[in-house]
Amino acid sequence: MEKLIGNAVVGQSGGPTAAINATLAGVIRGVLENVGDGAVQTLYGMRNGVEGLLEERLVNLNELFADPRNIDMLEHTPAAALGSCRKKLPKIGEDDAVYEKLLSIFKKYNIRYFFYIGGNDSMDTVAKLSAYTKEQDYEMRIVGVPKTIDNDLVVTDHTPGFGSAAKYIAVSMQEVIRDCAVYSTPAVTIVEIMGRDAGWLTAAAGMGLATNGIVPDLIYLPERAFNKEEFFEDVRKALSKHPNVVIAVSEGIRFADGTYVCESVGVGTTDVFGHKQLSGTGKALELAVRAELGCKVRSIEFNISQRCAAHIASATDIAESVCVGREAVRAAASGVTREMMTIIRDNTSPYVYHIDHSDVSKIANQVKRVPDHFINKRSNHVTRACADYLLPLIAGEATPSYEKGLPQFFVID
Amino acid sequence: MEKLIGNAVVGQSGGPTAAINATLAGVIRGVLENVGDGAVQTLYGMRNGVEGLLEERLVNLNELFADPRNIDMLEHTPAAALGSCRKKLPKIGEDDAVYEKLLSIFKKYNIRYFFYIGGNDSMDTVAKLSAYTKEQDYEMRIVGVPKTIDNDLVVTDHTPGFGSAAKYIAVSMQEVIRDCAVYSTPAVTIVEIMGRDAGWLTAAAGMGLATNGIVPDLIYLPERAFNKEEFFEDVRKALSKHPNVVIAVSEGIRFADGTYVCESVGVGTTDVFGHKQLSGTGKALELAVRAELGCKVRSIEFNISQRCAAHIASATDIAESVCVGREAVRAAASGVTREMMTIIRDNTSPYVYHIDHSDVSKIANQVKRVPDHFINKRSNHVTRACADYLLPLIAGEATPSYEKGLPQFFVID
Repeated sequence: MEKLIGNAVVGQSGGPTAAINATLAGVIRGVLENVGDGAVQTLYGMRNGVEGLLEERLVNLNELFADPRNIDMLEHTPAAALGSCRKKLPKIGEDDAVYEKLLSIFKKYNIRYFFYIGGNDSMDTVAKLSAYTKEQDYEMRIVGVPKTIDNDLVVTDHTPGFGSAAKYIAVSMQEVIRDCAVYSTPAVTIVEIMGRDAGWLTAAAGMGLATNGIVPDLIYLPERAFNKEEFFEDVRKALSKHPNVVIAVSEGIRFADGTYVCESVGVGTTDVFGHKQLSGTGKALELAVRAELGCKVRSIEFNISQRCAAHIASATDIAESVCVGREAVRAAASGVTREMMTIIRDNTSPYVYHIDHSDVSKIANQVKRVPDHFINKRSNHVTRACADYLLPLIAGEATPSYEKGLPQFFVID
Repeated sequence: MEKLIGNAVVGQSGGPTAAINATLAGVIRGVLENVGDGAVQTLYGMRNGVEGLLEERLVNLNELFADPRNIDMLEHTPAAALGSCRKKLPKIGEDDAVYEKLLSIFKKYNIRYFFYIGGNDSMDTVAKLSAYTKEQDYEMRIVGVPKTIDNDLVVTDHTPGFGSAAKYIAVSMQEVIRDCAVYSTPAVTIVEIMGRDAGWLTAAAGMGLATNGIVPDLIYLPERAFNKEEFFEDVRKALSKHPNVVIAVSEGIRFADGTYVCESVGVGTTDVFGHKQLSGTGKALELAVRAELGCKVRSIEFNISQRCAAHIASATDIAESVCVGREAVRAAASGVTREMMTIIRDNTSPYVYHIDHSDVSKIANQVKRVPDHFINKRSNHVTRACADYLLPLIAGEATPSYEKGLPQFFVID
């Protein structure tokens, strides 16, 4: 393949993670370290994804990161340093003005490389832009780089960003279990964890199965229908063994009829104006357990720290996220386009992986759920196989550098 | 003073913190390192505070911590390793059976030293037990060792446990602010922080004033009456400056008439059975801002990770907590009784402190609030003086040791 010489643009899209900037740092490293062997010249960053690109809000990353200390700092900065967006491109042929505008910007800046770091929607953008530029005979290499804390993309073994979120959850769960153990009076603590359709993050609460054996008493994933009667039975049984019961639930658990637990359990509340207020899943179960068992119950949400707690990021995740970004530059320079970078697991113990890429059209708009053999028969916990699979992804602590007790993050103004 | 030779007992009481085990480790170190010069012999741990002591649930700590690696691990373990209780002793003369039982146990185990690690209620226990044993002419040295994340004890400059909770809040706030900055659409994020009567922990959200300048737009402490109209005005003004507004609120903020914000703002909810459900303060303000301003709003609670996130404990706090425990042994051996150990700040920058002790009866049942000059005139933020005062308390990162990605904690079965 002939060498395609030109400039590149990189963007971040979708929800933030603790590792999406590490992937951006990887792309920057790839360009500055010239892994494309002269093919990729100036790297622009688009502010707020394609939304900002359409407004030509670009920043020259070669200049911004001339000092390598800035790249180091960026690698440990949570959330999307370039800003993000949730824009989905229209179908080609429906509103071509958007595509024409993009193409004119590519031509104006001689952009021949397009790197888009994101989840499912971003891969859709990669597929559509690839089709359009090909149709217009504008030679361009368009590569998707995965990120999502949900770990729900297919083909790739796991997604950058997941390991750090999983580590936050696994570590915090160890701490919460200690916290719950201090009193001798019966009490139930319900921890609500992110993940609407896939239970990967909630499964991370059970990681102790592969190490110290310290895990929540019960774990409920959205992959299995939630049965209220069995749940009460499980909680009673756990309380009969020891006074402090800890339960991890995915925010997305649903009953067999498909209704979300957070919409139901007879605990929907109404505000003083009569508007129905949806409580969280943990709150709904808290009220249900209190009504049914009458014991002390509390619910907590790990909330957005799950996706932005850079201070306890997984060193493995950050290293892989950088790697996948750098390799995207190498792949594109060598001719790869309309593909998403993937992480392929070669071995679990010891953990070995390599970076590959795969046709983006086979990845976009699909969801990878936690497989059956990772969930126990009673549907109230994960299996040892699940914990073994997850454990290497949280290995190592990638801490930011601190100044006067606070982490130092890189901010693009 | 004549040397009082005998055994000792140590207990933990009240809510757990990330540093209460570091103080326990300090007492153990004090005994094992013989800072009492032969006065203190065997150290017993009471399980679940005086509650377990009354049931003679004791553990020999000299034996359990013969291996110094166990002490190191204990120092980085969150929550109360001995277990805790919320028991308050009766007034002397009201129910002396409790005191007679305790005295018989002291005599049985030849216990002459009593160390109680806790907050206000624990200091009350220290005062009462001191009075009773003196009355009974049983020579004993009873010393309180402070701990509370709320930092609301008087006389001591600050309390062990506060620095680690403050660090969790300050670091997480830096991360949340990054997370909130990724989208360009207007949005308000309200973070609810612990502290019913004193705003110290919420004030920690503003620590960036003394370093990088990155702080929430607005900070509301329970020390000042909350004014809803001024609040809406403040939020509108913040939104006019930039799209992502972040607000830190103490769970304990109240209106001028004394009602808690979480009980009101016209957002109290009722469950399907008609029971009134108290929402959290953050949730109440979320609903109020949405109704008033119509923009995107979310509320999050930092929750119990504030008190148990050992993975981001303050190195300064852990070191001080150990020190205060060790010095309690030395003080008691030298004759101190009915006192609480205190931390005295000699200088702020550079930070210098020393350990002292003070009459417990002047400490118990009082609350230290955030002083006026630490809160701005508009009552919607902290001052630079406040951030300067707090900053040394979060210096350094006291991370536990990790094995396979998970922290190693010491568990007393």
